[in-house]
Amino acid sequence: MFAPVYLDHNATTPLDPAVREAMLPWLGERFGNASSRHEYGRAARKAIDEARAQVAVAVNAHPTEVIFTSGGSEANNLFIKGAAASMKPGLVAVSAVEHPCVREPATQLVRSGWRCVEIGVDTHGLIDLQAFEGVLAEKPKLVSVMLANNETGVIQDIAALAAGVRAKGGWMHCDAVQALGKIDVDFRALGVHGLSVSAHKIYGPLGAGALIVDKRVELAPLIAGGGQERNLRSGTENVMAVVGFGKACELAVAARQERAQRLAGLQLRLDAGLVQLGGQIFSAAARRLSNTSFFAFEGVDGETLVGKLDRAGFAVASGSACSSANPEPSHALMAMGVGESLARAAVRVSLGAGSTQQDVDGFLKALGENLASLRTLAAIAV
Amino acid sequence: MFAPVYLDHNATTPLDPAVREAMLPWLGERFGNASSRHEYGRAARKAIDEARAQVAVAVNAHPTEVIFTSGGSEANNLFIKGAAASMKPGLVAVSAVEHPCVREPATQLVRSGWRCVEIGVDTHGLIDLQAFEGVLAEKPKLVSVMLANNETGVIQDIAALAAGVRAKGGWMHCDAVQALGKIDVDFRALGVHGLSVSAHKIYGPLGAGALIVDKRVELAPLIAGGGQERNLRSGTENVMAVVGFGKACELAVAARQERAQRLAGLQLRLDAGLVQLGGQIFSAAARRLSNTSFFAFEGVDGETLVGKLDRAGFAVASGSACSSANPEPSHALMAMGVGESLARAAVRVSLGAGSTQQDVDGFLKALGENLASLRTLAAIAV
Repeated sequence: MFAPVYLDHNATTPLDPAVREAMLPWLGERFGNASSRHEYGRAARKAIDEARAQVAVAVNAHPTEVIFTSGGSEANNLFIKGAAASMKPGLVAVSAVEHPCVREPATQLVRSGWRCVEIGVDTHGLIDLQAFEGVLAEKPKLVSVMLANNETGVIQDIAALAAGVRAKGGWMHCDAVQALGKIDVDFRALGVHGLSVSAHKIYGPLGAGALIVDKRVELAPLIAGGGQERNLRSGTENVMAVVGFGKACELAVAARQERAQRLAGLQLRLDAGLVQLGGQIFSAAARRLSNTSFFAFEGVDGETLVGKLDRAGFAVASGSACSSANPEPSHALMAMGVGESLARAAVRVSLGAGSTQQDVDGFLKALGENLASLRTLAAIAV
Repeated sequence: MFAPVYLDHNATTPLDPAVREAMLPWLGERFGNASSRHEYGRAARKAIDEARAQVAVAVNAHPTEVIFTSGGSEANNLFIKGAAASMKPGLVAVSAVEHPCVREPATQLVRSGWRCVEIGVDTHGLIDLQAFEGVLAEKPKLVSVMLANNETGVIQDIAALAAGVRAKGGWMHCDAVQALGKIDVDFRALGVHGLSVSAHKIYGPLGAGALIVDKRVELAPLIAGGGQERNLRSGTENVMAVVGFGKACELAVAARQERAQRLAGLQLRLDAGLVQLGGQIFSAAARRLSNTSFFAFEGVDGETLVGKLDRAGFAVASGSACSSANPEPSHALMAMGVGESLARAAVRVSLGAGSTQQDVDGFLKALGENLASLRTLAAIAV
């Protein structure tokens, strides 16, 4: 297989070989329904319990607070819809830069009589604190703000926002899918009632995520049935994926600080190169994940550039993978006040565990060459 | 690892080595978010499309009718809740022998103003046709009846039931999770609007299932967000599991007839042995899956017997894996009019691809020995 340099780690990550090793027995001689009361079932249950403890340690939660789901999207939907189903309709507020899997379920609540508002952000992509205070004054029952943005990498001050929501008696949820493994994610310190994480963003498998949930929050299950996961998520547990998730969490915690520092160095180099080529880096002045650079070259279509870079051997994105399938310009950038034409020029590079200085330099070289040819074409077209 | 003889294939199945082979690349060099517009993303998308075609062939549906989910429980919840969310509240009817992941979502609808009724069954576990006509007279908007029961193995005449529901203008759903790979499952011939299937019951992986859905049915997604699966199931696609599901479907279709015939022979042998030991076989007079025998020995607690058999090296179940975690006697047996004490004696043997005559004979021998010792103990206790 032709293997381009992978610079799209916020979309998904390759499996860590140690995660693969942990999973392989569950593709072979080991199998079993964790609810079965025989040797096979008990072994599956034990493996899930161990993984639950590994996930709990990674986010500083108690294992009984970990509800395994099929991924981050399900975890986000479970908190928002599940909590709403147990309350009388009221106000739900989500930031304007949330992933669609937070914005959409919040919007769906409108059908059940809820009012849904978006909390605005400033030009850096940070929550507009005045807008936030305005929302708090209306006593929202549910608030969801992500810890780190998937596109810009901007990191919000969730602990402060959560304190405000708690003071008003609301439930605070945080999508930490992009943050886990990149910055410290501490369920207790954040002071949120629900926290979503996902395995495939941290070199674990697709098919596993978790909602970390404060037991005071009454949740109705999205998937009801056999009563697995404390009756909050029915369905035969995906042992193989959960085992991989646990291992990935263990590795993420161990590798986080050193990896983040190393990637910060590469990010400096990448950003300097982008600026030198005439690029604008979104959220450059805010605290960002050290693996993420979201940028644009005015007048150069992002989709076209991503296609050219792909053919040149570099896999990058024009925004989130979801919006990749969506012709609309980035919702997050529009919320930050970026003009539509610049938003359509957006390209995201997200570095990862395997990224090297050579990758960054090679990318910048290919980018420069493609920009030159695209600009020549544009000049001819004019 | 101590490996008892596995006779619990209705709970879950071991992975077929060919499924494992198909999945392994996706635990290694192959990875990618199927929504990404680069080489990695396109490869993932292509793999998913191929799997979708394999699943469609297995159930005689069009690939665009296949909505991948995380499993059977999610598929059942998606149809029932998703269809209900797009209609004004009305009557939802599910059979009294449905899996909890059909009964529970139907019950949850009551909160939204729906009326939920259970359709009774006769002593064999077959839908009581008078009760069914009574329900139809009330014009149900949603009806769900399973194709083959997970506990008794009883096969319902879904095509006839679906024709009745269609005539009244309702949507008919069928949980075919236990039927796939064991009997013919034909979406068109059954005439249902929704059909649920799962990978891990057919020697495929945990973490993949599908809802086959008639496009006339308007569904609201359970998991909303990025818009994957025709906007009916958001979340990054679990490529590895979906690829395994596709392969498992292909193999299931190829192996079905020969396997079902071979298991029918073993079932005759097993049932004869059970009767000889004094056992009663539930639904013995109805058309059953050829791999499933659900039986009881009056006065012998099912849970205790399952534990003894486990220690003797045979993994069987006292009803469904879900009810294994639930001290209540089988809901299906109670609906069939079985007395509580006999229902508490129930034990299920579900044979599979690897089951042999030696397994059956060994099981019957161990069963006989354990029954003798349990009966001796019971006699002493009296």
